[in-house]
Amino acid sequence: MKILVINSGSSSIKYQCFDMTTQAVLATGLVERIGEPAGRLIHRPAGKPQVERNNAIPTHRDGLAQVAALLLDPVEGIIESPNEINAVGHRVVHGGERFSAPTVIDDAVRETIRDLAPLAPLHNPPNLVGIEVAGELFPDAIQVAVFDTAFHQTMPPEAYRYAIPAALYDEHKIRSYGFHGTSHQYVTEVAARHLGKPLADTNVITVHLGNGCSITAVRGGQSVDTSMGFSPLAGLIMGTRSGDIDPAVVFFLHDKLGMAVGEIDRLLNKQSGLLGLTGDNDLRDIQRRHEAGDEAATLALAMYAYRVRKYIGAYFAVLGRVDAVVFTAGVGQNSALVRRLVCDGLDGLGIYFDAARNEARNGDDVREIHADGSPVRVLVIATDEELEIARQTVSVIRG
Amino acid sequence: MKILVINSGSSSIKYQCFDMTTQAVLATGLVERIGEPAGRLIHRPAGKPQVERNNAIPTHRDGLAQVAALLLDPVEGIIESPNEINAVGHRVVHGGERFSAPTVIDDAVRETIRDLAPLAPLHNPPNLVGIEVAGELFPDAIQVAVFDTAFHQTMPPEAYRYAIPAALYDEHKIRSYGFHGTSHQYVTEVAARHLGKPLADTNVITVHLGNGCSITAVRGGQSVDTSMGFSPLAGLIMGTRSGDIDPAVVFFLHDKLGMAVGEIDRLLNKQSGLLGLTGDNDLRDIQRRHEAGDEAATLALAMYAYRVRKYIGAYFAVLGRVDAVVFTAGVGQNSALVRRLVCDGLDGLGIYFDAARNEARNGDDVREIHADGSPVRVLVIATDEELEIARQTVSVIRG
Repeated sequence: MKILVINSGSSSIKYQCFDMTTQAVLATGLVERIGEPAGRLIHRPAGKPQVERNNAIPTHRDGLAQVAALLLDPVEGIIESPNEINAVGHRVVHGGERFSAPTVIDDAVRETIRDLAPLAPLHNPPNLVGIEVAGELFPDAIQVAVFDTAFHQTMPPEAYRYAIPAALYDEHKIRSYGFHGTSHQYVTEVAARHLGKPLADTNVITVHLGNGCSITAVRGGQSVDTSMGFSPLAGLIMGTRSGDIDPAVVFFLHDKLGMAVGEIDRLLNKQSGLLGLTGDNDLRDIQRRHEAGDEAATLALAMYAYRVRKYIGAYFAVLGRVDAVVFTAGVGQNSALVRRLVCDGLDGLGIYFDAARNEARNGDDVREIHADGSPVRVLVIATDEELEIARQTVSVIRG
Repeated sequence: MKILVINSGSSSIKYQCFDMTTQAVLATGLVERIGEPAGRLIHRPAGKPQVERNNAIPTHRDGLAQVAALLLDPVEGIIESPNEINAVGHRVVHGGERFSAPTVIDDAVRETIRDLAPLAPLHNPPNLVGIEVAGELFPDAIQVAVFDTAFHQTMPPEAYRYAIPAALYDEHKIRSYGFHGTSHQYVTEVAARHLGKPLADTNVITVHLGNGCSITAVRGGQSVDTSMGFSPLAGLIMGTRSGDIDPAVVFFLHDKLGMAVGEIDRLLNKQSGLLGLTGDNDLRDIQRRHEAGDEAATLALAMYAYRVRKYIGAYFAVLGRVDAVVFTAGVGQNSALVRRLVCDGLDGLGIYFDAARNEARNGDDVREIHADGSPVRVLVIATDEELEIARQTVSVIRG
């Protein structure tokens, strides 16, 4: 069974093709700068040389058509006919309160994803374009939507409601949704297997630190709270997003500094976070500057880690018993410094950190970085959102 | 030594007069609805009947002049001459980064308080009026400012900075300040004495739950983090304030629902919190509705307590070792239900709660409501911001 996974963003398309019988990756690739003068397509078929094409890619349809042609190419391809693809799994950012599980896409589902666009204006529309074009290029494949919000639909109301007039929830669905659900779910399942515990008895705190960052409290395998909220802006400090901030700062920027609301939106989403504090948004650059004695970089790292620590404490109070803290995604998997700044001195929570294990790198998918006897384990797990989408796609088409 | 404490708000003046030799309260009172057609003054001299006057009080000057006349009145008064008042301690809401301690007021201090008004437009201007008028009515008294933000000036940068462009801090001082400092400081000192520990070795989490609510992490007697931020809007759910919320909700309310920024400001500050969730902002009413089976009230209480629990966990991670959690202010001192909803099931943090002790009321200034052997004690302490202001006023005039 072959599954194509598509993540169609505002100006890019990421894809990955799996043979799910063996869970082998057949091909992976990326279409970038759609609609710009200089587009780019990178296609990596397994066991063959990488293909790179630099030419204008006017629309998502053009981009996905080029991807389909490459997948079918006698030399650079991996399939001989479009109908070899049994299903296409689409990452869809916002499923609102309507979708708590992967869903076969029909007209009604498409319509609902469209209805949810006001909640995710930058994401749901390009996700829909991907769904439409994939349906044309792979007409025999079952199209499945896997929602970034779905895993968090198990949150209880005291976690997802805001203390604002109830009508704003009832009529406009203003609440916390949470995102990165596929990643939090994937590493939760890997952690449970590693711990040798049934998922229903596994309590973990999953810390996804990439360019976007979020942290989730998982009780019995289910999300019960998460740091992103109504939008991906809330919670942890990220590459360019502020994370949590007193909303009165928005009023001050508007009233005293004369900024328009749209400018403030861009400021908090695109010009804040690590970028706003240091001028760099890549944690690796900030880490180098910190090691060279740059004070702004040192402060940014301290703030970044401090915020994660506070959420770990908060979710410890929520869960009562924590089996493991799990680090994942680019920064979580690769920055030993960040993990140390987060975990050091959390003995009071039963987190006994092992600095040497934290520094040692090996190729394992799951690494233990806690000290022997630590009541709470600390794990580093490589996330794989595409594989999780492919798995959920298989599970839904098998009913 | 007699100290008059004045808290001059936008349309009200609260006052309290102490004989600091004995810490006895000589008189207390309240001027309300200044500038409205029907004003009101209540004066409670110790050992004498309460005086209530209902008449228009056009200005703060009129109000404070009436207070001074009552204090000097041969029948209802407590002093014979204005110069019996050695000092007037003024509650000033915002001291910015300039004031980390109580300060004798001179022209330069007055000017600085005025300069800080953009950070506290509703509070610092009426505080200044109180200072000006008190200076005229008690010309021989030393005027001292005690700032609501001062106790939190010991927070480290990783706690007080926001992840927004650094220039917004450097040029406009946008950061977290925290408020309710006088109350957090007062109960911290009482807790240290009760625990029999030196203040410098006392770690507590102080939970101030009144109409406004905030929670502070105190290490070695000093505030190291607090839930209110740039303004008193952030953090816990309050009577009419939302507390923490994804700032993207502000953008949604503006962009999709067409609300003006000023309306959103009022919405989050005046129409949210318990009021927004239930229609009531008094926790006692909500508790009664909850007991009668009202679902909105039950949800509001669950959310209110859940937010406090998460902050307790977060500050546990910050402090590492916690000697006591301290409940104070109207709700914190009086609602056994809220204390139980907050503390029950926090055994994982070493908080062993005793439900029976929590329900038992006695007149003690400090009540213990933890179980015997609890690693973290849980205390209920009556706050007294006026006494703290009077004490700090004495300490500053003694140098």
